[in-house]
Amino acid sequence: MNRSIGALEFRSISKGIEISDQIVKKANVEIIYCRTICPGKFLIIVTGDEGAVDEAIDHGKSQVARILVDSFKLHAVSPVIIDAFKNKYVTKEIIDAIGVVETNKVCTGIVALDRVLKASDVRLIKMQLAQCISGRLVFTITGPVSSIEYGFLEIKNILSENEYSNTAIIPSPSKEIKKYLI
Amino acid sequence: MNRSIGALEFRSISKGIEISDQIVKKANVEIIYCRTICPGKFLIIVTGDEGAVDEAIDHGKSQVARILVDSFKLHAVSPVIIDAFKNKYVTKEIIDAIGVVETNKVCTGIVALDRVLKASDVRLIKMQLAQCISGRLVFTITGPVSSIEYGFLEIKNILSENEYSNTAIIPSPSKEIKKYLI
Amino acid sequence: MNRSIGALEFRSISKGIEISDQIVKKANVEIIYCRTICPGKFLIIVTGDEGAVDEAIDHGKSQVARILVDSFKLHAVSPVIIDAFKNKYVTKEIIDAIGVVETNKVCTGIVALDRVLKASDVRLIKMQLAQCISGRLVFTITGPVSSIEYGFLEIKNILSENEYSNTAIIPSPSKEIKKYLI
Repeated sequence: MNRSIGALEFRSISKGIEISDQIVKKANVEIIYCRTICPGKFLIIVTGDEGAVDEAIDHGKSQVARILVDSFKLHAVSPVIIDAFKNKYVTKEIIDAIGVVETNKVCTGIVALDRVLKASDVRLIKMQLAQCISGRLVFTITGPVSSIEYGFLEIKNILSENEYSNTAIIPSPSKEIKKYLI
Repeated sequence: MNRSIGALEFRSISKGIEISDQIVKKANVEIIYCRTICPGKFLIIVTGDEGAVDEAIDHGKSQVARILVDSFKLHAVSPVIIDAFKNKYVTKEIIDAIGVVETNKVCTGIVALDRVLKASDVRLIKMQLAQCISGRLVFTITGPVSSIEYGFLEIKNILSENEYSNTAIIPSPSKEIKKYLI
Repeated sequence: MNRSIGALEFRSISKGIEISDQIVKKANVEIIYCRTICPGKFLIIVTGDEGAVDEAIDHGKSQVARILVDSFKLHAVSPVIIDAFKNKYVTKEIIDAIGVVETNKVCTGIVALDRVLKASDVRLIKMQLAQCISGRLVFTITGPVSSIEYGFLEIKNILSENEYSNTAIIPSPSKEIKKYLI
């Protein structure tokens, strides 16, 4: 049961690769994402048991304070998030309302997404990662308006104002918008 | 005869989606472009009759002054522009000279393109939209040098200095450049 | 034996196309790269004999000081670099260690790469050009640690601190990292 994930987001591509190599050697973790992201950053996300992920991320952070943009460790993470990295979604069907969240950094966005999925009765239908949107993360969820609102309140509890740039709720999305959203 | 188009360019992806949904519900318009663009902006372009497009764009603008980057309403728009959004061009053949225009924002670029197509005897052979060029728009036209020059004068009449970044005229393009341009 | 290359990197797409056309008309050179790059710049790289490349680049520089980001002329250039522009590599096999270099501008990166390939016993396994990484160049080489270190020293001799952003050496890369690197 690999249910922890951890991430390191670097402002240097070369150093990011170097540290990524170190952490997979040091700890018993598996890579689920390891790539150059916009605009010139490097992101590695690993999964494993709690102890291994902690070891990997702590080691990475201790090596590269200067070039670290952001990081996280998430335990008992929603499996939906791990699937989204493989571009797998249980369903793309929109139920009721839509909620969209955009954060300035990828790591922050994943932490917010995990919180929403745990706290409220919504489904993830899309996760857009950084590419061509200046390193932002955007995720789209669906569910009853009240559940989305509750989820957004949870985000406000854990993120500061300048960590996420905006959220939106669309109560009953038009057919045209649905077509372009999914 | 859907010959008006209107656009809204937002600095927030989530709010952009929200407002896009509102305007297609409010007015009888059809979406021709609705997408995240570089670097982290959102652009919607709709078409319909004059009244519907005006209603859609006016409503959108009234909702989101804070996150609006740019917008336009173009009536009796050149059908060439609508085709270009579908990546359709009457011809890619270069006749005589080439003119290239780049603007800092997509909306400005489309307004300039419409003006050029209406004012002078040139053909559009390429329109590049924002992706990976920091939200700019670049369009390439072909025709006699004098027609391109006349078209560029028209652009200068409607845009301020800082709205477009550069223009270029290539009187008799070399074979090598043609190969890379189209 | 076309063994010289030269490049011009512009901050304007339209002017970049204009000058590119001029230089291929003026000098007997062949285009090996001619494209819009992130974030809104234009890059042309030409090859030919030494005199022709000099003529092309000197002419280009004399026309556009204001919009020129960077340029180079490289004589007796490593053929590996010309192949890399065509996405051809002798091998993608990793021998011993890996070295990664990232530079802030494409031109600087190619000059550094040429120096490394000439000075030390390493092989190029990947060259990433600008797209979605804010105009940077990243290259990955493989060989013995000592050769990579020697190559990096050579880079330090020719580039100033702020011309390259980082380098990294991975002595014995893990299987997982290799999978994501190539």
